[in-house]
Amino acid sequence: MRNVAIVGVGISRFGVRNDVRIDELAWESVKDALNDAGIEQRDIEFCSVGTFGSFNAEILPAVLCCDYCNLRFKGTLRTEAACATGSAAFFTGFNAVASGFADIVLVLGVEKMCESPTPVAVEFIGRSANYFWEFENFGVTFPGYYALHATAYMNKYGAGEEDLARVAVKNHYYGSLNPKAHFRNRITLEDAVKSRYVAWPLKLYDCCPISDGSAAVILASEEAARKLTDTPIWVRGIGVSNDSANMSRRSGFTSLAAAVDAARKAYRMAGIEYDDPLRYIDVANVHDCFTIAEILAYEDLNFAKRGEGYLLLREEQTYIGGKIPVNVDGGLKAKGHPLGATGVGMIVELTKQLRKQVENGRQAPIVKGNALAHNVGGTGHYCYITILSTEKPKWGG
Amino acid sequence: MRNVAIVGVGISRFGVRNDVRIDELAWESVKDALNDAGIEQRDIEFCSVGTFGSFNAEILPAVLCCDYCNLRFKGTLRTEAACATGSAAFFTGFNAVASGFADIVLVLGVEKMCESPTPVAVEFIGRSANYFWEFENFGVTFPGYYALHATAYMNKYGAGEEDLARVAVKNHYYGSLNPKAHFRNRITLEDAVKSRYVAWPLKLYDCCPISDGSAAVILASEEAARKLTDTPIWVRGIGVSNDSANMSRRSGFTSLAAAVDAARKAYRMAGIEYDDPLRYIDVANVHDCFTIAEILAYEDLNFAKRGEGYLLLREEQTYIGGKIPVNVDGGLKAKGHPLGATGVGMIVELTKQLRKQVENGRQAPIVKGNALAHNVGGTGHYCYITILSTEKPKWGG
Repeated sequence: MRNVAIVGVGISRFGVRNDVRIDELAWESVKDALNDAGIEQRDIEFCSVGTFGSFNAEILPAVLCCDYCNLRFKGTLRTEAACATGSAAFFTGFNAVASGFADIVLVLGVEKMCESPTPVAVEFIGRSANYFWEFENFGVTFPGYYALHATAYMNKYGAGEEDLARVAVKNHYYGSLNPKAHFRNRITLEDAVKSRYVAWPLKLYDCCPISDGSAAVILASEEAARKLTDTPIWVRGIGVSNDSANMSRRSGFTSLAAAVDAARKAYRMAGIEYDDPLRYIDVANVHDCFTIAEILAYEDLNFAKRGEGYLLLREEQTYIGGKIPVNVDGGLKAKGHPLGATGVGMIVELTKQLRKQVENGRQAPIVKGNALAHNVGGTGHYCYITILSTEKPKWGG
Repeated sequence: MRNVAIVGVGISRFGVRNDVRIDELAWESVKDALNDAGIEQRDIEFCSVGTFGSFNAEILPAVLCCDYCNLRFKGTLRTEAACATGSAAFFTGFNAVASGFADIVLVLGVEKMCESPTPVAVEFIGRSANYFWEFENFGVTFPGYYALHATAYMNKYGAGEEDLARVAVKNHYYGSLNPKAHFRNRITLEDAVKSRYVAWPLKLYDCCPISDGSAAVILASEEAARKLTDTPIWVRGIGVSNDSANMSRRSGFTSLAAAVDAARKAYRMAGIEYDDPLRYIDVANVHDCFTIAEILAYEDLNFAKRGEGYLLLREEQTYIGGKIPVNVDGGLKAKGHPLGATGVGMIVELTKQLRKQVENGRQAPIVKGNALAHNVGGTGHYCYITILSTEKPKWGG
């Protein structure tokens, strides 16, 4: 397997972006990624595009965005893995470089969701769990699904609603420091706890927004990277997994089995012990589509023992300065969650973190040289975990 | 780049498949591919799933199909490249093995379109050209787009409507010999020429049907393949390209520029001269969504000189026994065109051809040991060309 380096990153402002079409939104991040890498479109050999789609009138966004970005005759495809779509696009681009098929690849994640009215978007996302067995019969939407996880967790481990709220307070705090974030407002624990219920115990501030946005990453082979940059960020490990779409077939609601499986695979590839990941990882982005999801992620990644994830928040261990800073760009909760852009946006953030380029008091200490992105699709249907490193991995050749 | 071999193939019956759900339809081909490879689900390390989607109520078909096929905790994603979706899924699976990420990968292409009423499906496909600039303003659907190609070609080169019809006659003939084909009826030149107009000069028999179907391929690394089979079929070259979605930005209508670009790339990777591909290739499947598209493919692949593609049909050179048998499984025209399954189905057919396993008088002579699949997405938005071989490629290592 060839080594793969990140040599350029770009990200648009996330939020309600009625000011641009989807291809214009894509260009905002592609342009920045090209500039960051110091290359032009002619250097790109393949484009991997992540879009969930269907919130927007354009049915073939990959071709359209490539056309607008002057990326014709490269070869492209669209990947989808629900809310992990961006990471799936990254994985696809990674393999195209790792295999030797291409030396320089663009990974673009883009989503324009706000054109659809919120109830339509919420219903649409709800259908993407398991339409036949669950949505058609029970009409469950995603806040409802994650509420099942929250109640199961609270019941089993004694966490309270204010423990969930602490995720929102942290992520809004960091969102306030991130000029690209959808939400820039800080909130207090009281704001969060007193916000209106969406699906008990989840309240307004437990839910991430529906956002528009794009993010882009340029990947290069070791040889190509050497010519382009002195600070390549290497892909050290990727773990991918999938579980049943049908909640009644899951073994429990206090963990996402696909996330545990993906973490074990990614740690193995990266040479990281599952028993002690914090010995290796400086900073992480995890999939906080709902506050409970961030707590489950702490435990699925083994950042905390089972049933103790919420204690990390009580102790502020996932703030900068704590054991393991998490979602210090605002996370899905405050930075926003444009489905296809989310996973790529995590990689953009972590690349900048590892390069020590983050401003406004959001730079985490980089000591061990590794960062982790955890991106879940659906209610744990998919999980993609990507580990980045300042150091070239040993398996590459 | 590691060598990648096809070690198992399976395909469902194409047609109106209201007898099964999408996941049951997937299992029909997955089961056969597993049996053909002599492996079980536990041997699969990753699943690449090609589905266009949106014709069916299930929004996340990849996860659903994997679940039903007992393929949880493998890692999966959905690829989409319009009508070339199946080939994009194959390309994604290929890279996962070629890179060394996985040793055994399942590629599944599946589509269930017939649940949508035909006018809805036709409108939906029409939107997938360029919604904003073309569909919304002019309401063009795909027969209309390909009619533009047909009139331009007929005007420039002097081909007639009966030349288009000859594609349909050939492909229905081979469809009649293929028990998995959507249409099993033979037609005469008169049947085709006298059928009703859909978009002049394209008539009913110039258009492929809307179909349900699935196809599956199992890919393996050289080491894994050696343990599984004595007759591996190797991937010798893949070329991928994309063009503008906007017809007004194309340089002409008598060729698909993305197909020419993809062919040049695939031939280069396979070590085949663009000037003389028929010296290498025994049999091909090309993208005959409309009859004119098969004629353009002959020329874009350089099976015939510019303006002479239709002469191959007059001389019956693309029948078995001719210079280059094309679509001897019935093609999209008669075998059917379930979008995600189409490209994978081409690979299934060509694998069986190279293994000399095809029955009912459909086996092409295999002398040179190479076969080619040409799969177009949209109106030339995407093109994927895959070259298979009985011989291990020289570039593999």
